[in-house]
Amino acid sequence: MAPALNLTASQRIPAIARPFVSDRAAKTLDLVEKFVEEECLPADTVFFQQLGQTAGERFSAHPPVLEDLKAKAKKLGLWNLFLPRNHFKEGAGFSNLEYGLMAEYLGKSQTASEACNCAAPDTGNMEVLAKYGTEAQKRKWLDPLLEGKIRSAFLMTEPEVASSDATNIQLNIRRDGNEWVLNGSKWWSSGAGDPRCKVYLVMGKSDPNNSNKYKQQSVILVPADTPGITINRMLSVFGYDDAPHGHGHITFKNVRVPLDHIVLQPGSGFDIIQGRLGPGRIHHAMRAVGVAEKALDYFLARINDERKKPFGALLSSHGVMIQRVAESRVEIDAARLVVLNAAMAIDNGDAKSALKEIAIAKILVPDATLHTLDRAIQAYGGAGVCQDTPLAKMYANSRTLHIVDGPKEVHQQQLGKNENKRFKIVQQKLEAQRVKADQLLRKYGLERVDPLYLGRVSAGTSKL
Amino acid sequence: MAPALNLTASQRIPAIARPFVSDRAAKTLDLVEKFVEEECLPADTVFFQQLGQTAGERFSAHPPVLEDLKAKAKKLGLWNLFLPRNHFKEGAGFSNLEYGLMAEYLGKSQTASEACNCAAPDTGNMEVLAKYGTEAQKRKWLDPLLEGKIRSAFLMTEPEVASSDATNIQLNIRRDGNEWVLNGSKWWSSGAGDPRCKVYLVMGKSDPNNSNKYKQQSVILVPADTPGITINRMLSVFGYDDAPHGHGHITFKNVRVPLDHIVLQPGSGFDIIQGRLGPGRIHHAMRAVGVAEKALDYFLARINDERKKPFGALLSSHGVMIQRVAESRVEIDAARLVVLNAAMAIDNGDAKSALKEIAIAKILVPDATLHTLDRAIQAYGGAGVCQDTPLAKMYANSRTLHIVDGPKEVHQQQLGKNENKRFKIVQQKLEAQRVKADQLLRKYGLERVDPLYLGRVSAGTSKL
Amino acid sequence: MAPALNLTASQRIPAIARPFVSDRAAKTLDLVEKFVEEECLPADTVFFQQLGQTAGERFSAHPPVLEDLKAKAKKLGLWNLFLPRNHFKEGAGFSNLEYGLMAEYLGKSQTASEACNCAAPDTGNMEVLAKYGTEAQKRKWLDPLLEGKIRSAFLMTEPEVASSDATNIQLNIRRDGNEWVLNGSKWWSSGAGDPRCKVYLVMGKSDPNNSNKYKQQSVILVPADTPGITINRMLSVFGYDDAPHGHGHITFKNVRVPLDHIVLQPGSGFDIIQGRLGPGRIHHAMRAVGVAEKALDYFLARINDERKKPFGALLSSHGVMIQRVAESRVEIDAARLVVLNAAMAIDNGDAKSALKEIAIAKILVPDATLHTLDRAIQAYGGAGVCQDTPLAKMYANSRTLHIVDGPKEVHQQQLGKNENKRFKIVQQKLEAQRVKADQLLRKYGLERVDPLYLGRVSAGTSKL
Amino acid sequence: MAPALNLTASQRIPAIARPFVSDRAAKTLDLVEKFVEEECLPADTVFFQQLGQTAGERFSAHPPVLEDLKAKAKKLGLWNLFLPRNHFKEGAGFSNLEYGLMAEYLGKSQTASEACNCAAPDTGNMEVLAKYGTEAQKRKWLDPLLEGKIRSAFLMTEPEVASSDATNIQLNIRRDGNEWVLNGSKWWSSGAGDPRCKVYLVMGKSDPNNSNKYKQQSVILVPADTPGITINRMLSVFGYDDAPHGHGHITFKNVRVPLDHIVLQPGSGFDIIQGRLGPGRIHHAMRAVGVAEKALDYFLARINDERKKPFGALLSSHGVMIQRVAESRVEIDAARLVVLNAAMAIDNGDAKSALKEIAIAKILVPDATLHTLDRAIQAYGGAGVCQDTPLAKMYANSRTLHIVDGPKEVHQQQLGKNENKRFKIVQQKLEAQRVKADQLLRKYGLERVDPLYLGRVSAGTSKL
Repeated sequence: MAPALNLTASQRIPAIARPFVSDRAAKTLDLVEKFVEEECLPADTVFFQQLGQTAGERFSAHPPVLEDLKAKAKKLGLWNLFLPRNHFKEGAGFSNLEYGLMAEYLGKSQTASEACNCAAPDTGNMEVLAKYGTEAQKRKWLDPLLEGKIRSAFLMTEPEVASSDATNIQLNIRRDGNEWVLNGSKWWSSGAGDPRCKVYLVMGKSDPNNSNKYKQQSVILVPADTPGITINRMLSVFGYDDAPHGHGHITFKNVRVPLDHIVLQPGSGFDIIQGRLGPGRIHHAMRAVGVAEKALDYFLARINDERKKPFGALLSSHGVMIQRVAESRVEIDAARLVVLNAAMAIDNGDAKSALKEIAIAKILVPDATLHTLDRAIQAYGGAGVCQDTPLAKMYANSRTLHIVDGPKEVHQQQLGKNENKRFKIVQQKLEAQRVKADQLLRKYGLERVDPLYLGRVSAGTSKL
Repeated sequence: MAPALNLTASQRIPAIARPFVSDRAAKTLDLVEKFVEEECLPADTVFFQQLGQTAGERFSAHPPVLEDLKAKAKKLGLWNLFLPRNHFKEGAGFSNLEYGLMAEYLGKSQTASEACNCAAPDTGNMEVLAKYGTEAQKRKWLDPLLEGKIRSAFLMTEPEVASSDATNIQLNIRRDGNEWVLNGSKWWSSGAGDPRCKVYLVMGKSDPNNSNKYKQQSVILVPADTPGITINRMLSVFGYDDAPHGHGHITFKNVRVPLDHIVLQPGSGFDIIQGRLGPGRIHHAMRAVGVAEKALDYFLARINDERKKPFGALLSSHGVMIQRVAESRVEIDAARLVVLNAAMAIDNGDAKSALKEIAIAKILVPDATLHTLDRAIQAYGGAGVCQDTPLAKMYANSRTLHIVDGPKEVHQQQLGKNENKRFKIVQQKLEAQRVKADQLLRKYGLERVDPLYLGRVSAGTSKL
Repeated sequence: MAPALNLTASQRIPAIARPFVSDRAAKTLDLVEKFVEEECLPADTVFFQQLGQTAGERFSAHPPVLEDLKAKAKKLGLWNLFLPRNHFKEGAGFSNLEYGLMAEYLGKSQTASEACNCAAPDTGNMEVLAKYGTEAQKRKWLDPLLEGKIRSAFLMTEPEVASSDATNIQLNIRRDGNEWVLNGSKWWSSGAGDPRCKVYLVMGKSDPNNSNKYKQQSVILVPADTPGITINRMLSVFGYDDAPHGHGHITFKNVRVPLDHIVLQPGSGFDIIQGRLGPGRIHHAMRAVGVAEKALDYFLARINDERKKPFGALLSSHGVMIQRVAESRVEIDAARLVVLNAAMAIDNGDAKSALKEIAIAKILVPDATLHTLDRAIQAYGGAGVCQDTPLAKMYANSRTLHIVDGPKEVHQQQLGKNENKRFKIVQQKLEAQRVKADQLLRKYGLERVDPLYLGRVSAGTSKL
Repeated sequence: MAPALNLTASQRIPAIARPFVSDRAAKTLDLVEKFVEEECLPADTVFFQQLGQTAGERFSAHPPVLEDLKAKAKKLGLWNLFLPRNHFKEGAGFSNLEYGLMAEYLGKSQTASEACNCAAPDTGNMEVLAKYGTEAQKRKWLDPLLEGKIRSAFLMTEPEVASSDATNIQLNIRRDGNEWVLNGSKWWSSGAGDPRCKVYLVMGKSDPNNSNKYKQQSVILVPADTPGITINRMLSVFGYDDAPHGHGHITFKNVRVPLDHIVLQPGSGFDIIQGRLGPGRIHHAMRAVGVAEKALDYFLARINDERKKPFGALLSSHGVMIQRVAESRVEIDAARLVVLNAAMAIDNGDAKSALKEIAIAKILVPDATLHTLDRAIQAYGGAGVCQDTPLAKMYANSRTLHIVDGPKEVHQQQLGKNENKRFKIVQQKLEAQRVKADQLLRKYGLERVDPLYLGRVSAGTSKL
């Protein structure tokens, strides 16, 4: 319908979001698109080949192409884009809505987020350090993170408990003289595979008997090379090892760090993870929109591939395929609006006041992405599930979005329970309408046709 | 999640839409909500009872409660809200986005749209007359329509052909001296049942042999009482007759009107229906969001009804029900954003430049509404399918949204085909990325691990 | 794929069911098909026109065409087909599987079930009387029911409580001398609208304080003309009144019947409703398969209608439509197998031993029907939702299948909970496999690659 | 509902299938279950560890545990179970329905199918050789295959064309004196990675200019070590390499074999692949039912895992989880019936006469499996996507079922088109019903209420 097909990123901003994007952000957005499409996506191929073949090689590799990309990104000013302007002075000065548009493009490439120093879990960790860190902690860890010199991990999930409920976390943090002593095990420690990962933010229980179960936890900064730490193994995701980043299964055996390695004070662990997952809560969703767009691009390329004509016709000549294009476009555009609205809500206040909008984004967006990917995989057939397209790996990654940062069901229950709190107001409103209707009927000289009308919706309010 | 549960309409505007709503519009919006919830919804009960029981009575009735509501609405300034400020001087002066928020509330009630003179098909007909009508036509038909004194119908769909393709329309318009002579039949002539419906805008073929099949049609203004017109019967929708409005099946037998009853000139029928369905294209979708909200209200009322506890517990104590609350909230909020974004796109330019956004709204919104309604019906059980709740009738009405104004599949094919036009650009982009990747691999001294890599996506570009 | 398109009903029996159908049943099945397609379906049109237009007329009508059909059916031997041979001597002597195949065809027509005296709720009521009735009760009520001279209703659901849990039922049954006195209200009393409905089987509480909440209920036979009974109104289903059958909302005010009008003894109400819904539990599902086949027939007729070519091509030339044909065929054939398997399970034992299979049929079949209907409605557009096709009414009826005889969610919870009982056996099995795997690893001189392997699935068994 | 939870395989046979299972088959079925659950599933762990870590190791490995399992299976008589008794004397003598029940259990384990010499693609290849092979070919290849001494591959799919349409196949087969010369490339050559894979059945074009495009192809037996063959690389499936079996991408460069290596005669390639995919067409579907059952087992184990209680409660205490148990049970049981009905249809005639039933199985079953797997993965969270459960790999494998043996869409189009052929009969039937209804109306002295009734469904018959 749009006659101009070759629009730039800034020209494709949804109408309702465009007014909130400054000229500087629009220019940066176009630069991000160009950088991702022309530099990062080709570099992805190199990146995967610069990893070795054995597990040992893959988790000690640091693909040189990535450092070259980082240098380019810095030169282009595409650095630390994620730190929102109204909360952090260290970032590039964009709003969450503006960054949301950029993150979409970063999501298309394996290397782009890290190239622009916008990769999880560093982003969240940098936010924590900038927000809660002491000056010494900032100098020691925040500065090199902001410069992209080191990487970090956030260790929360544990293998032996249901970590979707963070109060279940068991890693023991015990004070012993001038030191914290950590014992326990963590898994899904994402990023811990990278040899450049120098610091872990470790969540554990320092006060397991505190009557307030949200005050039992603390977060400790632990250098990755501290004695007593063992990376037992790396976890795969649908067969992919995500090297060199990786997802570690790690044990802590009498791991000791000085007392000043705590973030904030003992017992503030829950506050920190709440704060950590502020704007960052929707970074995954922002990028997932880009993953979906990339999947749709691949879908279009395949259904119009002149070499691949089953039964003599392009796949795009089949209405079923065009319908799938439309279904993907509808789902993706709705997903983007949901993400941008959540970003706007965060920009207006903070992540806390935008909990509903964030939950909606986390629930809805992964499905748009997975559905679009599944359609693309199906169109490619064998090429869709193997290494000849990035689709299967994108699917594997995207499937985890319903699991990480809280499973979909937990978001649904929280969102649903909060919505359900309206019930009393709704019942009163409906009852008032019924009473008013009865008055009106009398006024017009009528009686209810159905004398046993059961529109009353709740005994609780029926005495009105 | 929001602590304040009892928000007004203006306080519930999505974050990303709020800045586009003027203070005047916000106040009007709250007034609309109040008017609908406190006046119109109770009046709905009266309205249905003021209709008679036999078909004859039902289609000659004019429920007095409606005129009283109209008087109230006029006094409150809630009149002709739909005419967008940047195109019409006759309206209340709101943008499409602002009206979109208001129309949501109008959608909750049977009587509200008409009470505010914002009911289809008058809205579209008024737009046509204001845009294309002669002065004489405006005085004769537009003025009383704007004042709510008469109603109108738009006669396009025909029973014998596939009207989803408007070029199939067959009603014959022949010039005979100083008159147009119409012969043929129409159905789904919505509004034709109302005794106050005084004028039909009739689409037909005046030049059936024109080589340009989009120039064969004309639109003629036909007074409803012109000899030769027969309303054969009224069509039901899932058993509902939608009286007194109704959906007529009408035949034209040598129906004669003067030459000046044509809108624009002969052959401009297609231009008119395109123009007619400008902003109005998403009025149904706007109201459907309100229908969904009303369904969710009813759902909440039911699952918290103290009198209805199967197996000893409120339905809301079941996770399955709370999950459905969340699913509805997610779908509705996404639907609203899609509608408002389309409205904004129309506000920025015109309906033509917003075709993609409009199509997305028309495809996505009805599903959000139908899903929410289906959940509510299921929660109510028997009360959900019968006359004791408005849910079944809302479902019947909403189900038609995938049919009227073009079936869902047509929108999907148009949207999909337009999206598919991007394929060449996408193929070139992917191919350029492949070429660049090969250059990079060489630069870093690597060869492709997979020498027979098949990432090339199109023979069309594979000679690069 | 089958070259022979014009197969008879007995030729279309699924391969896996065919061996269980006797020659006599196969012949009867073909006769049923012929009777339904050639007699009943045309008679449906007459039936609807022989009903009047006002509510009063519609619920006092007894369309003559129905009695003519009944006479024909009796002559053809198509009478009381539903009573399974291994339980009742009064019936036609077929197995439930055989009747299941026949009932599919009955389901296609409004009039066919009643024409063959196989209509709900009489079927269940006849089963109750045959199984539990005294000789006097049988002579008085069973005989005329078996002969099709009267009709009956089963009054269970109540408007003020959540009747999906039958223990909530409140209608009071009190003994007073030689009489039972009934007070309370019932709704969804299906069949109560028919002037030929002469007896109600009324479920109520005769012993509300019994500590066993399944012993509080009794079932009383109440002649429909007993003083104190008021039919307040008839309930609609999506706008359809289902006249003359109808769904009554009835109050009982000091309704008195002799003591011998009780079925079995006081307190056996629950046993009776369990027994009543024996084979009859899947009659709805059996017929719903036929409803789906009819919808698919209509779909095929429409997409190949030469008069209705949007954009110049038959709808059947669009892959999307052919895909929907396939989706419907897949869903319907799976649904039929599920129904027949449940019937076979009942034939093998009784309804109690087939609870799982029955639940699966009740959950799965209505969706196959609703999906197929929705596709057909969409293909017809306006004709699909109005009176010109039977589709919208079929949709309305079929939608209630997820509500009547217990809502879908209750069946899912029961089925799921029973399936979940396997968990301990499963956990033990998986744990045994882990232990055996460890033994094998040692045998082959290996250690687990993942020393912290977490395949152990339950702490409950991890001490093995 | 079933009180006995610990049923054996033969006790769990669906009621409608049980009578077709001989005592010998029932005993074998229980033996298969025991062998799979107690021997094969524990052996899977060993199998994966006996593979090496590097690509080179993995595709030269032959895990000793597999040979031990094979020896056990032979001793138990669980060997070549797949060859149906009515077509092959070489097999174990079971019907397809009986084997279908057994294959379900084989599907649960990585090693079981091969352990019982029932693994694809050998099964299909053995069928081809038994059916079409010369005596010499049988002795050379069929005998060692039947004994499990060698393995084989079927090379059809090609990377450069849309192989879902087999007429697109391009590998050139040219006669040169006493030899066939093969040139071209193949991929998804499953099994070609295994060092024991000794023979390829290669489909190619020997007569590319034949006017009958189904006579252009031949199948040639090519020893795997023939000069000119290069395995370029192995393809992954969602990151899994499926070693040592694997999926090869292979090129043929002037590969020469004697003339007697052709199967049947030149031009019979299409006949062979049709015949090859006889009963074998639903082997994947049979096993997929077992995959789904295994997924449900894992789901039950997880939601009742005492160690994993988010928010203090077992997952199984949440209605949402129990609902998912029910949804899985419903989908799996329907899938099994569909598979067994297709098997029965094949047993009754041959695969050709069962095309509809086979297509339905291929379309429906994978979805039941994928849905159940997705639910299980979600319940496990991180453990569901990584190597600690078999779920993610099962998902990857199962996802290919919509692609291999023809994509889902092709089956849907074929099934839909064949079903659509009924349209004329249906239209005539509906028209005859309309005519009969009009006669009946007249007979009863009525006219159609709707004089413009549009129930006529086709212009083809509208002249009546």
